[in-house]
Amino acid sequence: MAFIAVDWGTSRFRAFRLDAAGKVIDRVVAEDGMANVPPGGFGDVLQRHCGAWMALDPDAPVLMAGMVGSRNGWAEAAYAPCPASPKSLADAVLAVSERISIVPGVIARGPSGPDVMRGEETLIFGTDVVDGLVCLPGTHSKWARVEGGAITDFASFMTGESYALYRHESLLARLAAEPEDLTGFDEGLEAAQNESGLLNRLFQARARVLDGAMTGEKVGPFLSGLLIGSEIEGAFRRYGGEHRVTLVADGVIAQRYVAALRARGAAIEIFTPERAFLSGLAAIAAAR
Amino acid sequence: MAFIAVDWGTSRFRAFRLDAAGKVIDRVVAEDGMANVPPGGFGDVLQRHCGAWMALDPDAPVLMAGMVGSRNGWAEAAYAPCPASPKSLADAVLAVSERISIVPGVIARGPSGPDVMRGEETLIFGTDVVDGLVCLPGTHSKWARVEGGAITDFASFMTGESYALYRHESLLARLAAEPEDLTGFDEGLEAAQNESGLLNRLFQARARVLDGAMTGEKVGPFLSGLLIGSEIEGAFRRYGGEHRVTLVADGVIAQRYVAALRARGAAIEIFTPERAFLSGLAAIAAAR
Repeated sequence: MAFIAVDWGTSRFRAFRLDAAGKVIDRVVAEDGMANVPPGGFGDVLQRHCGAWMALDPDAPVLMAGMVGSRNGWAEAAYAPCPASPKSLADAVLAVSERISIVPGVIARGPSGPDVMRGEETLIFGTDVVDGLVCLPGTHSKWARVEGGAITDFASFMTGESYALYRHESLLARLAAEPEDLTGFDEGLEAAQNESGLLNRLFQARARVLDGAMTGEKVGPFLSGLLIGSEIEGAFRRYGGEHRVTLVADGVIAQRYVAALRARGAAIEIFTPERAFLSGLAAIAAAR
Repeated sequence: MAFIAVDWGTSRFRAFRLDAAGKVIDRVVAEDGMANVPPGGFGDVLQRHCGAWMALDPDAPVLMAGMVGSRNGWAEAAYAPCPASPKSLADAVLAVSERISIVPGVIARGPSGPDVMRGEETLIFGTDVVDGLVCLPGTHSKWARVEGGAITDFASFMTGESYALYRHESLLARLAAEPEDLTGFDEGLEAAQNESGLLNRLFQARARVLDGAMTGEKVGPFLSGLLIGSEIEGAFRRYGGEHRVTLVADGVIAQRYVAALRARGAAIEIFTPERAFLSGLAAIAAAR
């Protein structure tokens, strides 16, 4: 069945027109992320970008995922509980009109408190993982345990946001120099093993520069290695140090996570976010 | 011997006139921290605040500690190595004139890389600790191991700076509400025990609010409890979970560290920063 797939996040709007065979026949990317849409304006934005497709395929449903389903989005799609499968999410989609629906996010209620995702669940279903561990790096990275094709638990890490804060707003910003010396990344990965915890490791970047043991050019990559290494360390402690990780990432971020995971001895399979999104949304659409 | 004690940090200048018995007979506090003094202007600032005292007691030496001895201060006093005692620092003071000297900072060269302090070494000597663990909370908290009256190792934690960044610059800033509900602090302390690490715990504040499990009024105190708890956890892992901690702090910060340390079963002795500074500088002056 032909359908229109919309990946509508905080800062970006991306839509794909798919034919009955699941092939992308048209696409649009725009800066109309949720944060830039005025209240009540979501229908207009969708119409502007996808109205022509909707007219061409009048029977094609429009399925959306991401922050568009949050409290400040088009309509709030209540988080679906774990275990969450393409079928359970298909059963819980929120219809905003006869043909337009929103895939809900997922909530995990672990012993250490709740955790939430919106959009990543769709990418996780788009990997071929039936039983395993999936990592989605980002502003708020997600690590998900998948069992029998369902997300049974997951954890979020404030990695990307923390990198931006410390790199640009902390005292480390004054010490960091460019062009970057990427060997600092491996030193950061190694420092992530330090038993005194992240708050101590962060100060170490400063102490190493003041001591002359590290150049300013290494500060940014060191910070990246430290934070990514700390995330992986925390995820492995929680999920038992898997030897196989499925990574949903591309570009520089993918390279850095591959290097960090390899340093921990993990075998890695990679999916690009776009491929994972389209496969995942197709799986949810097929389960309806 | 009468002397003039100067605590000259990044943001504040504080000076004390002491009589031969070590009693404070005059004091001044000003905003002329190192960051506000133009290059070459340190002598003028000292003269402005302490010139009258220096004229009254022409034999009284002026002993200074803190960031005034850093690269961007009056003159760079090279870090003294651990183990550092009042005697070893007295032997290493940097004279900027016949009567004016700067106490150097201290560097620890542990297996996980260097760590540095400037000013805190003086406060540590001002506690009565001969063998034990000293904690100095702050923008960059310090934990020092003291053996035989000397600092043998220490670790810095970016706790206060991280609190300011996450509370005011991160996505959590939008969720935090006031007046604060201080019960969030204990929830943060408990979350600090979570095995997945700080980057995961930070996201939990967000997830708890989105899930309705925590009010916005608790976000600030939760963050404080999480960061202070993580610092203590890291310090205890490094220094072996002492049951007695000497705390150099006052005000709200002292209250919060006392609560956090008590929750970990530690016995606590408290010194105010001013008392510790004056006693420490007197010990270094006496060792010259």
